[in-house]
Order: sequence, then structure tokens, then C-alpha cells
Amino acid sequence: MLGNFVYCNPTKLYFGTTALEGLREELPKYGKNVLLIYGGGSIKKNGIYDAVLKILKECGKNVYEDAGVMPNPTSEKVYDGIRRARESKADLLLAVGGGSVIDYAKAVSVSVHCKEDFWEKYYVGGAEPDCEIVPVGAVLTMVGTGSEMNGGSVITNHEQKLKIGHVFGENVFPKFSCLNPEFTFTLPEYQMVAGFYDIMCHILEQYLSDTDDNTSDYVMEGLMRSLIHSSLIALKDPKNYEARSNIMWTATWALNTFVAMGKTTDWEVHMLGHAVGAYTNATHGMTLSAVSMAYYHHILPYGLAKFARFAVNVWGVDAAGKTEKQVAEEGLSRMADWMRKLGLAMDLKTLGVTPDMIEGIADATFINQGGYKVLERKDVVSILKESL
Amino acid sequence: MLGNFVYCNPTKLYFGTTALEGLREELPKYGKNVLLIYGGGSIKKNGIYDAVLKILKECGKNVYEDAGVMPNPTSEKVYDGIRRARESKADLLLAVGGGSVIDYAKAVSVSVHCKEDFWEKYYVGGAEPDCEIVPVGAVLTMVGTGSEMNGGSVITNHEQKLKIGHVFGENVFPKFSCLNPEFTFTLPEYQMVAGFYDIMCHILEQYLSDTDDNTSDYVMEGLMRSLIHSSLIALKDPKNYEARSNIMWTATWALNTFVAMGKTTDWEVHMLGHAVGAYTNATHGMTLSAVSMAYYHHILPYGLAKFARFAVNVWGVDAAGKTEKQVAEEGLSRMADWMRKLGLAMDLKTLGVTPDMIEGIADATFINQGGYKVLERKDVVSILKESL
Repeated sequence: MLGNFVYCNPTKLYFGTTALEGLREELPKYGKNVLLIYGGGSIKKNGIYDAVLKILKECGKNVYEDAGVMPNPTSEKVYDGIRRARESKADLLLAVGGGSVIDYAKAVSVSVHCKEDFWEKYYVGGAEPDCEIVPVGAVLTMVGTGSEMNGGSVITNHEQKLKIGHVFGENVFPKFSCLNPEFTFTLPEYQMVAGFYDIMCHILEQYLSDTDDNTSDYVMEGLMRSLIHSSLIALKDPKNYEARSNIMWTATWALNTFVAMGKTTDWEVHMLGHAVGAYTNATHGMTLSAVSMAYYHHILPYGLAKFARFAVNVWGVDAAGKTEKQVAEEGLSRMADWMRKLGLAMDLKTLGVTPDMIEGIADATFINQGGYKVLERKDVVSILKESL
Repeated sequence: MLGNFVYCNPTKLYFGTTALEGLREELPKYGKNVLLIYGGGSIKKNGIYDAVLKILKECGKNVYEDAGVMPNPTSEKVYDGIRRARESKADLLLAVGGGSVIDYAKAVSVSVHCKEDFWEKYYVGGAEPDCEIVPVGAVLTMVGTGSEMNGGSVITNHEQKLKIGHVFGENVFPKFSCLNPEFTFTLPEYQMVAGFYDIMCHILEQYLSDTDDNTSDYVMEGLMRSLIHSSLIALKDPKNYEARSNIMWTATWALNTFVAMGKTTDWEVHMLGHAVGAYTNATHGMTLSAVSMAYYHHILPYGLAKFARFAVNVWGVDAAGKTEKQVAEEGLSRMADWMRKLGLAMDLKTLGVTPDMIEGIADATFINQGGYKVLERKDVVSILKESL
């Protein structure tokens, strides 16, 4: 059953090989000062930086820069970004990169005019902004997080060993995003497949919750089937436009709030993954893949019917003559095969986790309420140990 | 493959049993004068009129009325609406009803400040508005058209015997829509099932086009499976909230532009249905169901692989040991069974079409370019005759 909800997603998307031309439509809507936000500089190698800068200049903008946003953006870096945005009197924050860069831009956007400490207010405190928000636009170069069309923003505080995601309201969503699948072609395979698993995990965090019948579940089964199909094509042929364009679109819809409407969601794999990330700085998607199988096997008995439906409708398991449990487990087994085929991290050791870290990671793991089993601390420890 | 596109859908949705409370959030954003637009008065019997009026009054609005919008709203009625909106200096057009009422409100919204003739400019001419647009809000009482979250507006000109749909840009989309599934409980069964088929047909018009692999196709298969499942529950138990809420949500997403992005679409069944509607004034969904089977069988050879995929993924046809054609035809046969179970019109005779009307209906049928076969006039005549 669909519970009561409010849905609004005003982000404008420019999709395809001409997506960057969308900047020419959008830039005139904002003031002259643009803070260009990006990461480690790969956009300078693949030509995206030059292409964006050319359009910014042609549109008569004053361009200021905020480079060096790291894969798991830190609170320290956000303070730096706030200062830069203030100094440049930025009218628009243009994030060019993957989810981390866009997440970071949102953190800056709500903090430039905020008088309180942003980390305490938004991330620890979970408050909504009550100040002016500097608009964010995005040019996406890596798929996975859905940050291009939602209010999500994950920031890591190394001092506090906390990685916290805040889901802001629609006034913090990017005003526009340019999605050119070709921009994802040059991503190293490790990052590419981590992104694929991030997408899958986003869908599962929303799918593996509730026992009701729900339109969203049918839609998510479609999104997962499309992702599985295209991911295997992209693995062999990363420049396959058909596969990469479908994956890019799937990623956006996996986490732009649509499929979550009216249902409960879990997000416990992300809580585990965030805690691992705070201890290891490992790639986000890999922290998720490394704990997933242990987590899903742990909760399977509590959501058996849904796991069995997942096996049949997504993985094509033939249920004839099998118990529900057998069907459900065969589904997870096929999923693990797919994960191994992609080359995902299947354990925490690979990511640099050592047994002495387990208790600390367990302490840093938030317990959510929406999944098939509300974990106790001992469940968390057991899942982490099993993932080692 | 996903072609290039721009996507933006800013409509805010309030969904569920408390949806009407969304009006209290939205009304303060607009001026004092509200033109309340509705149909034949069923909203006065079921209490929706009183509930809406109460909130309008509590929010301090001056309420003006435009009642009597007919199921296939006419150009004549739109002129009347334009006059009423001008006289009341309407700041907001609040459409309370099904797709016809919302379609009509959109036609008025773009015409109040338009100096040219609205029918010639927008519907015959296909132009976009270049004048101020009066904002539209909606309270949905009947599902099917998706008009609550798109720019579509179908108007019938009886004098010219033309029923034309214009798809306006996002500036004409309703600013907000309130979707309470309970408001659909009292709809007569004939209207309910016609709405169900309208939803199915919307999806098929977008699904049965292209030979590429496409995320949207997977999503649409999910939407159709959800619809088929819930429609049969609703048929037996129209007050089943789970079924009606899922159908309401499916209807919105079937036609709010999402699934059409990056792919070609057909819409030829709607062209046939509109022509039938202009001659008979029959319920929209029934004009679609009456011509569908003849149309699909006619184009099946040209889109065989997709029809076979449809049979397997949506209708659960077992493909083992069968030719692609057999699989495809078994899919259509199962679909026809579902349609008969719902009690849909399966031929044109039922809708009052007589053999002497065929040539006129064929003349009034627009030929689209996006389907598996671009029809010639003789195809249209043959499909219509077969549908008799």
C-alpha cells in the first residue's frame, strides 16, 4: 500500500551527447559569479574542464575555482569551499564531477549564508536550511549516487570518525544537471563497477523493505533488470553508448526519490558502508559490496517472501519445486555471481579493514528502523566479522 | 539507446488520504481570486466540493465557479471558461475532477491573456504560449490521463469534427496536484475500467516503438505488471485502497513524460480513438480499447521482437518451443482476455459507430510516424472495419 507522501522534483536534466549545451540555456538565469567546483583534476585530462570553461566564458561569467574535492568529501574541505563561495560572491555553484563533488556543492550551498556551524546544524543536527541557498548546477562525469537529481549530501568528518548523509528538501536539489553518457567513458574500471554496485544497492535499500504490494517494487525490478543487463555489456565494452546511457538514466531514477514514495526504506547497507568508509576511505560502492552479502543473508529470514520475489522477478530463478527459502537463496547466489563478474570487493579485508577495527566500525554504524530486521549491535559486529 | 532529451517535471504532488491538506500549503502562494473548475456535479454528491470549498474559504480566497466541463471538453466551453477567468481576474485555476477537467483548465490557462484565437493557435497550430499563463492546480477524482502531472490537453471541436491533443511545456503543467485514492472509490465501474485501459494504452503507446534496449522499457514492463495486478483486485473490490492507490500512482507515471524520454513513441491508438471520439462522444478509454486489438494485430509483424518481449515480460508467456510470432500472438491473446475480464468495449459497434461513419473517422485520424508501421489511409480503414 502506498502511504501518504509529498513528491516534487524540479531538477531540469539535459541528457545525451549534447547535454553540455544545456549550460547555455541555464547560465543566463543566474548572476555573473560562478564558482566552478571539481575534484582531482581528471576533468582537465579528458577535456571536460575546457569545454565547460569555454561555455562559461562565452556566457560572460566570472569564473572562480574550488578544486580538489576528494572522493569522500570532508567537513574540513567544506569550510574551505564556504570561504571561497563567500569571497567570490558566488551566484551559482557549478559542480563538475561525480556524486562526491555534487554532494559537496550542496553542503557549501546551504552554508554560505548560514550563521551556525554547518556540520553541527545540518549533518549532526539534521536541520533544514533557513538561510538563503546558493543555487547548484551539475555536470555529471560519473554515475551512481543520483546526487544530480536529489537532495542527498554525504560528508565525512575524520576528526569525529563520522560519515553522515543528509537528505535535503527540493530547494537544495541541483537546479539543473547535464548528463552526457560519453563523459563516463574514461572512468577507470574500478570506479565504474563501484558505481554500478552503488546503483544496485540504492535500489535494494528501497526495495528490500515493506511486505505490501507497491507500484514502486515493480518499477525497481525493471530498473534492476536494466542495470544487470547493461552493466555486463559495459564491463566488456565501456564505450558502448547504449549501455552507458541506460545505466546513467537508471542511476538517476534509482535515487531521485521517485521509487521511495509511499513506502518504507532500509538503507542499513549504506550505514555499514559509511562506517567502513570513515575508517578506510575506501571507494563508496566497494564498501557497500563488501558488506552486502553478509547483511542480506543475515536479514533474509525476516523478509523471506520479498527475497524470493526478488530472486524470481530480477534474477529469473525458476521457483518450481523449491521452498521459498531455496528460491530466495538462489537469488542471492546469482546476485553474488554477478558481483564477482563485475570485480566488486566481496570482503572487507580487500578494503584494508583489519580485525581490530571491527568494534570501532560497529560503533560508527547508525542503526536504521526500516529494514526487515532492526539490527542490534551484536548483529552489526557479526555482519562485519562475516564480511572480513 | 537513449537519444538526447531535456527532462523537467516541476509539478508538486500531494498523495494519499491527506492529499487535500496540500491545498493549505499551496493556496497561500497565489492571489485571492480562485476559479473553481469542475464537471457535471458528482463532486457535490460525494463531498469533495464541500471539502475543497471549506479549505478555499479558510485560506481567505474569493471563489468563482466554472462548472459543467464535459467528458470530452469542447472548444465552445473553453471560450466560456476564458470569459469567466477574465471576469473573475483569476489568480489560480483550481481543477477538481478527472483528466478532462484538468485538460480544460490548461486550455483556459494559456488563453486568458492570449490575443489570438486559442483553438487555431494552440490546437490546430501547435504553438507554445507566449503570453502570461494563469497557474493551474488540480484535485484529481479519476485516474487515467496523467493530466495531473503533464502538459497534455485534449480539446474537441465539434464544428470541425476534430479532437486534438496539445502537449504543452512544463510552464503549463499543474503547479500542484492533490491525489487522494479514496476520491476514486465512487466512480462508476464503466468509468473506472475505461480509466484502467487508458493507463495501459498510454504505456503501450510509448512501449511499442523502437527496437533498441532502453531502461524505459523495463520500467514500463513494471508499470504494466503492477496495473494488471491491481486492476483485477479493484474490479472485485473498488474500495481496496492498496489497489486504487497503486493504480493512481501508476497512471501518473505512465504519462508524466518520464518513460518517454530518449525514445520514440507511437500514439496511433490515441489518434484512432480521438477520431472515434469526435464522431461518437464515447468515453475516451473505451474508444481506445475498441480499436486496440485490430491495431496491434495489424502492426505485430513490423514489431515482432518487441511484441514477443511484451508477451514474456508482461503477460508471463512461456516462450519455450514456440516461434516468436506464436509468443507475440499469445501475449495479445492474454491481453484481450484481461480486457474482456475488465468489461472494456472490444468493438466500435458497442460505442455507436455505424459502417457509414468509417470513411469520416478515417479522414479525422491523424497518422503518426513513431510506431512500427506508418499507417496508410487504407490501413486505417481496414483497422476501423475490423474493429466494427
